[in-house]
Amino acid sequence: MAQSIEKDGKVFLLAYDQGMEHGPVDFNEQNYHPNFITKIAIKGGASCVAMGYGLARRFYSDELAKQMPLVLKLNMKSALYSGNNVSALVAGVDEAVDLGASAVGFTVFPGQEDERIGVQQFAIVRKHAEEAGLPTVLWSYARGPEIEDQYDSGVVAYAARVGAELGADYVKVKYPGLEALPWVNKVALQTKVLISGTGGFGENYPAEVKKVMEAGATGLAVGRKIWQDDDPISLAQKVSQVIFG
Amino acid sequence: MAQSIEKDGKVFLLAYDQGMEHGPVDFNEQNYHPNFITKIAIKGGASCVAMGYGLARRFYSDELAKQMPLVLKLNMKSALYSGNNVSALVAGVDEAVDLGASAVGFTVFPGQEDERIGVQQFAIVRKHAEEAGLPTVLWSYARGPEIEDQYDSGVVAYAARVGAELGADYVKVKYPGLEALPWVNKVALQTKVLISGTGGFGENYPAEVKKVMEAGATGLAVGRKIWQDDDPISLAQKVSQVIFG
Amino acid sequence: MAQSIEKDGKVFLLAYDQGMEHGPVDFNEQNYHPNFITKIAIKGGASCVAMGYGLARRFYSDELAKQMPLVLKLNMKSALYSGNNVSALVAGVDEAVDLGASAVGFTVFPGQEDERIGVQQFAIVRKHAEEAGLPTVLWSYARGPEIEDQYDSGVVAYAARVGAELGADYVKVKYPGLEALPWVNKVALQTKVLISGTGGFGENYPAEVKKVMEAGATGLAVGRKIWQDDDPISLAQKVSQVIFG
Amino acid sequence: MAQSIEKDGKVFLLAYDQGMEHGPVDFNEQNYHPNFITKIAIKGGASCVAMGYGLARRFYSDELAKQMPLVLKLNMKSALYSGNNVSALVAGVDEAVDLGASAVGFTVFPGQEDERIGVQQFAIVRKHAEEAGLPTVLWSYARGPEIEDQYDSGVVAYAARVGAELGADYVKVKYPGLEALPWVNKVALQTKVLISGTGGFGENYPAEVKKVMEAGATGLAVGRKIWQDDDPISLAQKVSQVIFG
Amino acid sequence: MAQSIEKDGKVFLLAYDQGMEHGPVDFNEQNYHPNFITKIAIKGGASCVAMGYGLARRFYSDELAKQMPLVLKLNMKSALYSGNNVSALVAGVDEAVDLGASAVGFTVFPGQEDERIGVQQFAIVRKHAEEAGLPTVLWSYARGPEIEDQYDSGVVAYAARVGAELGADYVKVKYPGLEALPWVNKVALQTKVLISGTGGFGENYPAEVKKVMEAGATGLAVGRKIWQDDDPISLAQKVSQVIFG
Repeated sequence: MAQSIEKDGKVFLLAYDQGMEHGPVDFNEQNYHPNFITKIAIKGGASCVAMGYGLARRFYSDELAKQMPLVLKLNMKSALYSGNNVSALVAGVDEAVDLGASAVGFTVFPGQEDERIGVQQFAIVRKHAEEAGLPTVLWSYARGPEIEDQYDSGVVAYAARVGAELGADYVKVKYPGLEALPWVNKVALQTKVLISGTGGFGENYPAEVKKVMEAGATGLAVGRKIWQDDDPISLAQKVSQVIFG
Repeated sequence: MAQSIEKDGKVFLLAYDQGMEHGPVDFNEQNYHPNFITKIAIKGGASCVAMGYGLARRFYSDELAKQMPLVLKLNMKSALYSGNNVSALVAGVDEAVDLGASAVGFTVFPGQEDERIGVQQFAIVRKHAEEAGLPTVLWSYARGPEIEDQYDSGVVAYAARVGAELGADYVKVKYPGLEALPWVNKVALQTKVLISGTGGFGENYPAEVKKVMEAGATGLAVGRKIWQDDDPISLAQKVSQVIFG
Repeated sequence: MAQSIEKDGKVFLLAYDQGMEHGPVDFNEQNYHPNFITKIAIKGGASCVAMGYGLARRFYSDELAKQMPLVLKLNMKSALYSGNNVSALVAGVDEAVDLGASAVGFTVFPGQEDERIGVQQFAIVRKHAEEAGLPTVLWSYARGPEIEDQYDSGVVAYAARVGAELGADYVKVKYPGLEALPWVNKVALQTKVLISGTGGFGENYPAEVKKVMEAGATGLAVGRKIWQDDDPISLAQKVSQVIFG
Repeated sequence: MAQSIEKDGKVFLLAYDQGMEHGPVDFNEQNYHPNFITKIAIKGGASCVAMGYGLARRFYSDELAKQMPLVLKLNMKSALYSGNNVSALVAGVDEAVDLGASAVGFTVFPGQEDERIGVQQFAIVRKHAEEAGLPTVLWSYARGPEIEDQYDSGVVAYAARVGAELGADYVKVKYPGLEALPWVNKVALQTKVLISGTGGFGENYPAEVKKVMEAGATGLAVGRKIWQDDDPISLAQKVSQVIFG
Repeated sequence: MAQSIEKDGKVFLLAYDQGMEHGPVDFNEQNYHPNFITKIAIKGGASCVAMGYGLARRFYSDELAKQMPLVLKLNMKSALYSGNNVSALVAGVDEAVDLGASAVGFTVFPGQEDERIGVQQFAIVRKHAEEAGLPTVLWSYARGPEIEDQYDSGVVAYAARVGAELGADYVKVKYPGLEALPWVNKVALQTKVLISGTGGFGENYPAEVKKVMEAGATGLAVGRKIWQDDDPISLAQKVSQVIFG
């Protein structure tokens, strides 16, 4: 039986799929290493950490599994070509189970020209995950020729609803601003909303995260904002404090 | 043995796949929620309700299943890119059976450039549905570079015939106006015609629905026209009255 | 053991796949219905009738099966987009067997840009049909960017040879005129040639069909020319007379 | 155990896949028929004959199989559209075994835009053939947007090496002229080189074939040059004489 | 149990997939032959040799397998069309096992338009290799419309990280210069970095290889630089000396 990625019904997911999605340009001499990230997650009070198969196989040990639930991110793509619009499936639900993961993550881009491919692959992943008893976390980022602003409140609400319609347990969406959150949460129904914690936030980060949670989000999914900070454990602790109280 | 989606040989299908097909822009503070829709269906006298896997898994409970037959819509696409012309298969017939559905729904777009993909997927769904003893409801909407008006009587008749040729049990088509209906019904043969109940109708809705039924349609498949109404249960009851008499 | 689609080594196939291929624009108040067609076939003396799965499932009853052998047409496409160049497989050989069909029909378009897809699907159908003991009827219509005239004698001879090379039992080709037929028949080898009976014929239809048969064709595959006639049974009988003598 | 397609370590393959690859325009009143071809092969002293499934199923009888080993050509395409660049797989290795074939033939076009598709299909065919104990004959014809001359010695050497790299037992390449042959043979390693016997040869055909063999080719694979000749058996005998001595 | 491709924790891989990737233009009268290459590998002190299925099946004998571990390269493409951007899978992990290989090799091109296809195929290969107990060597070469310089230090670091994210055991990358290596090695984490040994090196080759190793690379993967040299065994011995000490 997998651990929960929640604590007290809330989620603080520390995301670490950027090595593939953005490349090492995001990294410094410390945060290039998954062990640094998981240390932040544990000491900073996150409720789970997300990474891909390659990292998890090497750095998500049995011992770690007891301390920090894993969201195994199943698909990914590089940023070396901006036109790449469908992520590749690089691991299966069976491998998530073998690694002791507590959930699987998957990215779809509603609005892209090949939307069908990603949505259909998620349907298969979702079915396998249900059979394996693992919840699904859907990165739902609206992108494509007709999306002008992926932070737009209507666009984010649509992306959240996609998570509900496809049967995801959690949906990770861009932060559309505080006023938009109640509607986003509503239309997502029982699919729990995780706000992407890097883009769109103002200066006092923990304070704004607190308002995000008060507005009804189930949690925050954040990477660079935390692990690129000068004092990441301290920042994570502050975030953890406002999320879990 | 699945329940029938008919009452007295007629169908009043309350459609609720718009969260994916159109996005939350269709919704208000009430109708964003499937429970609101199923309440309308039950109190308003519909003979079945249609929704996708994500919603049905959470909101189509065993208790509800006894009161309101479900058409599980198996494929869908977002409106975030208008060029998306093939819907993604997001659930299978086996899942419809597990959810206690009484029929499966599937959309094809005859006339589109990738017509083959959707038609071929429907053939597989149709075969699985026959094996499972579930009827198929085919949303047959003619679309594509050479379709000028999908409400045109000849276009709708063709879309209806496609349902018959592909072996669908029910075919949902656009409303081409009353005069066109007898021919549409004829060419659909034993495939029962459900008229899409939102576009193309005039002011006195129940009266026109009555005429649609008198013209030989097997039923009405309608969503927004009902659940966006100020008094949706009352409107549904009026529609139910003219359909089931 | 399937019945033969031949009588005395000749074929008079009454084709009825036009509801999908052309749409109801081909139909009138009588011929829109498969029962009208099969009545013509039986009373008019055809040796077999061709239709798709949707129609056959409903209108090809066991009783009928004893009187009129069925060619189940396995792939089809609509005319709602003229650029659709690959037909969708909508039923399998196993379903042809279940329906009591005597042969399966399949369309390829040699010369089109996606020739490979159709030809490869036919190879699978051909293999399944051989295993099931059903002959294959290949609609071989040369089409594509470099085909100027699909009635050209060289083009038709090529289309006929394609049937032989792919291992079809029968090949249905356009009518290239009488003079071209001996060569067409020759290059088709033991694959029996059925001439498409609507386009390219002159005024005295039965007389020209007689000459077609005398020129060595195994038979005629015709739809609209017969069932759009004012007196279709009578016309069919005349055709039957010249084919079977 | 399949017969060898060699005699005394040499190959004289009589090719007859032109009905699909070029169409009946290649044929006259005699050579349109496979029996004419196999008669030439037997009387003319070829070591094997190549044809596709459709022809072999009908004209490669058990009796014939004892006299003339068969190379079953597994993929093919028509010439009705010059842009068709991937051949369709029309039969499998299992069917080659059933027909009593001694080898399977397959065409790849290194240098074309969809090279990957053909190469990957050959890998599967090659594996099945190894399991079945049948050698593979790879028609390796370099074609594509950047190939200026498929008879160029460097291009032919590359095509031959592709056969070796992909694990073909025999590789059939265009004739690049005598001077180029030693290098072509060398880079093909243990994959035996068959020179395509129609294009590129001068006036005294048997004499030039003799030199081709002396230059180290394992054999000749030729069709039209032989069976379009006024006295094909006699020509074949001369070729056989220079190949097998 | 497969042998290791390492000696003392270091790798000197002699690459020989150029017959397919570049064509025979790379070869002379000696190095066209795999036996020449493996002789260099053995006498020159390499720790493994890489080649494709076609060559390995014929020239990687059991006797040889005891002396020189094999990396079976599983996918490849020709250079006959520069736009070919996805390599074809030409053999499977099961065949690597049958041949006695010690590892499997696979090429991906992060940044290309069809990145998804190659990455997804590698995921399957990687899974099969894990099940078979074979390590994977990923040729990770960033290429595509937005890659200006595949030797750029940031691009190479990204390519190396892709190896780590996808779970490769070894990643072969272009040589970005000495200063860039520590960062490349770091971001590759426990995926061991093999530097591509032909492009980007200066005049005193063994000396520069020594510095590459001192900068933290696990090894060198080199082909032409060695086997095109006038005295390849001697050069290989010098390289071996600086790698293994």
